Amino acid sequence: MSAVKLQECRQLISSQLDGVVDFWLKHSHDEEYGGFFTCIGRDGTVYDDLKYVWLQGRQVWMYCRLYRTVERFRRPEILEAAKAGGAFLRKSARLSSSDSPWKCAFCLTRDGKAVKVQRSIFSECFYVMAMDELSRVTADPDMQLEAEQMMEQLIHWVQVDPSGLGRPPLPGDIATNSMAVPMMLLCLVQQLTEGRGQETAQKYRELGTWCVSQILQHVQRDGTAILENVSTSGAELPGSAGRLQNPGHALEAGWFLLQFSAETGDKEIQKTAMEKFIELPMEYGWDSDHGGLFYFLDVDGHCPTQLEWSMKLWWPHCEALIALLMAYCQTRRPELLQRFLQVYDYTFSHFPDDKSGEWFGYLTREGSVALDFMGGPFKGFFHVPRCLLMCERLLDDLLQTLDE
Amino acid sequence: MSAVKLQECRQLISSQLDGVVDFWLKHSHDEEYGGFFTCIGRDGTVYDDLKYVWLQGRQVWMYCRLYRTVERFRRPEILEAAKAGGAFLRKSARLSSSDSPWKCAFCLTRDGKAVKVQRSIFSECFYVMAMDELSRVTADPDMQLEAEQMMEQLIHWVQVDPSGLGRPPLPGDIATNSMAVPMMLLCLVQQLTEGRGQETAQKYRELGTWCVSQILQHVQRDGTAILENVSTSGAELPGSAGRLQNPGHALEAGWFLLQFSAETGDKEIQKTAMEKFIELPMEYGWDSDHGGLFYFLDVDGHCPTQLEWSMKLWWPHCEALIALLMAYCQTRRPELLQRFLQVYDYTFSHFPDDKSGEWFGYLTREGSVALDFMGGPFKGFFHVPRCLLMCERLLDDLLQTLDE
Repeated sequence: MSAVKLQECRQLISSQLDGVVDFWLKHSHDEEYGGFFTCIGRDGTVYDDLKYVWLQGRQVWMYCRLYRTVERFRRPEILEAAKAGGAFLRKSARLSSSDSPWKCAFCLTRDGKAVKVQRSIFSECFYVMAMDELSRVTADPDMQLEAEQMMEQLIHWVQVDPSGLGRPPLPGDIATNSMAVPMMLLCLVQQLTEGRGQETAQKYRELGTWCVSQILQHVQRDGTAILENVSTSGAELPGSAGRLQNPGHALEAGWFLLQFSAETGDKEIQKTAMEKFIELPMEYGWDSDHGGLFYFLDVDGHCPTQLEWSMKLWWPHCEALIALLMAYCQTRRPELLQRFLQVYDYTFSHFPDDKSGEWFGYLTREGSVALDFMGGPFKGFFHVPRCLLMCERLLDDLLQTLDE
Repeated sequence: MSAVKLQECRQLISSQLDGVVDFWLKHSHDEEYGGFFTCIGRDGTVYDDLKYVWLQGRQVWMYCRLYRTVERFRRPEILEAAKAGGAFLRKSARLSSSDSPWKCAFCLTRDGKAVKVQRSIFSECFYVMAMDELSRVTADPDMQLEAEQMMEQLIHWVQVDPSGLGRPPLPGDIATNSMAVPMMLLCLVQQLTEGRGQETAQKYRELGTWCVSQILQHVQRDGTAILENVSTSGAELPGSAGRLQNPGHALEAGWFLLQFSAETGDKEIQKTAMEKFIELPMEYGWDSDHGGLFYFLDVDGHCPTQLEWSMKLWWPHCEALIALLMAYCQTRRPELLQRFLQVYDYTFSHFPDDKSGEWFGYLTREGSVALDFMGGPFKGFFHVPRCLLMCERLLDDLLQTLDE
């Protein structure tokens, strides 16, 4: 593989990142009430002004991360937008009516009134990401403290007592290990500890190890499949939920584990991440007829019950690009770079919208655009720029070693 | 239109009904725990043994209705299956842990333990349908009483106090008139009063009128659109939810209103049902490129946020067939029969699966099979046989008048 091709990738990725940042800077800021619009059409029209807390937290995080780590994004407008988003979150995300002072809404009106609340932990997780990253660019210790306090609540809900989440206890609703939960917590451990020194690292070390062990429970069927939902003791669950596979999610877990192994030097976890969470889902998740990664699959080949199972979504492709490039950078195995370029070709020939500078999110199995908006209730300023930022950084490092 | 064509339709519809009934009799009965499997593949394989309460109630209702009203289905095995399903529902559907003794689960384990509960009224609605229809074939007054008691609870939740449903009160979650609610209640009024005499009819008359007025609030934009969600005072709501259209649902409401107008002799409602709930959704809901009815649309032409918006589902086509044929029978306007035949041609060339005798439920926009199971979490023994039964009956009546 020539450095020329990698240089070409790097250039396209950087220009895409610029276009995506411009789109959200231009169209998503609510100057009146703070926070971000995320339901945005190709021409920048805000077609719904509801504010989804996941996406508010993610956009704050992403702006801060860009501001903090990339010279060309160290711009006052990005910092100010992040701070305004953080202020909106702090003012409105938490439910005053809940038994717990930490439970957050899922969705807010434009002016910050709670519309919906989920009986899960994810709004709160993105709140932690936002507050911690914001504390790094503002040097505000209150924000860091708030992130850590929210994290304590999350750990309590996950490891001690979930009743504060509002799910009624039901006799047939057995506790499960859903891969999203340890993945999110591992992501937060990495967020909260990055560059914070030994004391903070020590504080979360045990939790990080626990998250990794919980993620590894999802390797099933003698190592031939990653399943999304397993029992809390790591056994396979019955039915469609037990057989569910989400290749993009497995790939995302893959690069979380690669990062963990790089920090801890754990070669065994690196190997498992490569083989089971990255190479394996690329095998079973890739649509050999039409290209692209399926959204959901059933490990026994039954038809998944999710109506969108065969659609090609933007974010699994983002996660695949990060995972494959990171895996290649760590090992220099050429087949990983080949795989990266396979996903790269599909992704950049299908998802970017030249008209808007942002990406389509939802394609049919055959690869045509099924939903043509740039942002929606679940697509904000997060997976695309995170992928482009991380790939730009990885390619820079790679190209530098090739120069040497 | 020749009687020959209608005779041909009648024959295909009847043979399809036989095939569908056979499929569920053969594959769906749980002889061990009672109730019905509904997650069933093309070859009859049960790919998940969860029991969805909506579908349990609907199957009991459908078996009883077939047994009670169609000579060739007055078979002991159908009656026994309905009774076994009813016993399973009575034993397991209601949540012992709820504050209300009437709240039902959404989903049960095979042996009847609650897995999930929805914060809405629909499990309970299908429980009422099942119990009332079962009381008609068993002549069991307890079942009828139970249906009426559950109905009282439903009315309380909808008209007085929804807090028993378990939705936390949130400041941005304003009460809305979602068309499904008055539609379901109107359906239950028709169920509970059919042939029960004046006293029962009187008991529910006011509620029926209220349901109709609530449904009519969904005629919006100067009569040019049916919107799924409006305010409780009948005003349009903001955002994607406010602009949402579901053509199949409007068509279903259309034939509910036609039935109501036939019972009450209200010509104004008949006219509104025809023009606004049947002809109008057929105009805006039909995909002129690929045929078939869209699942969701946005009245302003934005892209709906539901990933499945452009898919062709079986049930909107079932409801369209009933609505158009009933409308034609009431008016004999030839354009309604033309429309019926248009939907008929699309439906019978796309949905029936010759291999199994049942129907595919989920097609892509282009009309190819996207999910290949015969039954799933939301597709049971209900829309297809109800449509075939009602169309068979309507065609019989029509053909009889043509003979005369």
